[in-house]
Amino acid sequence: MRVIFNEELKQVADDLDRMAQDVSRAIHGAGDALLKSDVEAAQTVIDGDIEIDALESSVIDQCIRLLAKQSPVATDLRVIVSTLRLSATFERMGDLARHIAETARRTYPQPTLPPETQQLFTEMQEFLDMTADRLVSMLSDRDAQTAERIIVDDDQLDQLHHQTFDLALSDEWTGSKQQMIDMVLLARFMERLGDHAVSAARRVVYIVSGFDPTKEPAGEDPD
Amino acid sequence: MRVIFNEELKQVADDLDRMAQDVSRAIHGAGDALLKSDVEAAQTVIDGDIEIDALESSVIDQCIRLLAKQSPVATDLRVIVSTLRLSATFERMGDLARHIAETARRTYPQPTLPPETQQLFTEMQEFLDMTADRLVSMLSDRDAQTAERIIVDDDQLDQLHHQTFDLALSDEWTGSKQQMIDMVLLARFMERLGDHAVSAARRVVYIVSGFDPTKEPAGEDPD
Repeated sequence: MRVIFNEELKQVADDLDRMAQDVSRAIHGAGDALLKSDVEAAQTVIDGDIEIDALESSVIDQCIRLLAKQSPVATDLRVIVSTLRLSATFERMGDLARHIAETARRTYPQPTLPPETQQLFTEMQEFLDMTADRLVSMLSDRDAQTAERIIVDDDQLDQLHHQTFDLALSDEWTGSKQQMIDMVLLARFMERLGDHAVSAARRVVYIVSGFDPTKEPAGEDPD
Repeated sequence: MRVIFNEELKQVADDLDRMAQDVSRAIHGAGDALLKSDVEAAQTVIDGDIEIDALESSVIDQCIRLLAKQSPVATDLRVIVSTLRLSATFERMGDLARHIAETARRTYPQPTLPPETQQLFTEMQEFLDMTADRLVSMLSDRDAQTAERIIVDDDQLDQLHHQTFDLALSDEWTGSKQQMIDMVLLARFMERLGDHAVSAARRVVYIVSGFDPTKEPAGEDPD
């Protein structure tokens, strides 16, 4: 019985890995859509979000089936509950990447943002691309060190996010009002992607630590 | 055994009701902070968010204990899993109300937004106040009709949200760049509060319907 249970747990873990990979692809694609006006990349991200949502439903179903059939306790139980939370986090990250892609598609063939923002948003995107890659390896290897790096480094993204406001308020800003609106929202979406990555990382640290209560994530969405 | 289980389920349901009440108070308070420059209301919302977070932790703990001790199946199991999701939704709503209150506190004693926005934001706030009240009664009565109204009416909030962009782009707009940034973010926070209320309502419909799969919420965060 135990063996079957662990096999089924492995199946849901595989689906969660797949979610992380899909989210990572969506983050990279949203960056191409926004910074390179790549409308095909935008469309791929938008279309691909359905798959992420479907994977979430599948993960929820599997978790409920495992809970019902196997009555897990202790570690297995906490892994399943954490898996439910992680799948919700990834689903939301897919939405945020889709929002970025939709904004880029709306303004295509014009770039969404004025040229003076390019460097700053490129830095934010490079940060998010790195975080996305870390997310995948953190998940597939249950690697607490990578998770810790995601948590610690998020400050950098917050600083870049603040710089977007400074830029908008400075004399350097040449954009229209519409571009101001888009920039504020895009920067917010990117910052939220970072927050959700931190949330996922905290949960992985909690799992890997053997559910050390001192490492229990407080509040799903760190702010 | 069954009786004890239902008593414990009642305890966690009570805590969830309390979360809904706290979130409702936070939404009303954030509105007072923003629209009446009520800095005490702002501070109360900001301080109160800790309690909402603590309630979420308590709900999670109780759910995990129930899952471990009672090995619930069928309806009870789905109620517990739905409770976990609802508590995450409410926790996030508390964060959003806090963000609004923090913005109002930052600009105090100046109003955060220019006068031409007052009417539109008052309409949005009235909508959210109504939604907050509905959320509480939906939860305490497990009332699917109220939940359905939350779901159907959310379009109104989305329309008001779009009007904030129209206003910012129009000649009527007299605000500064900083006010533009704040308005875009505040309107986004308010729209998200509505989205989360819809997400909670969908889950309650799903519970009350006896987990009719056709009413299963697809994706935690409707967009």
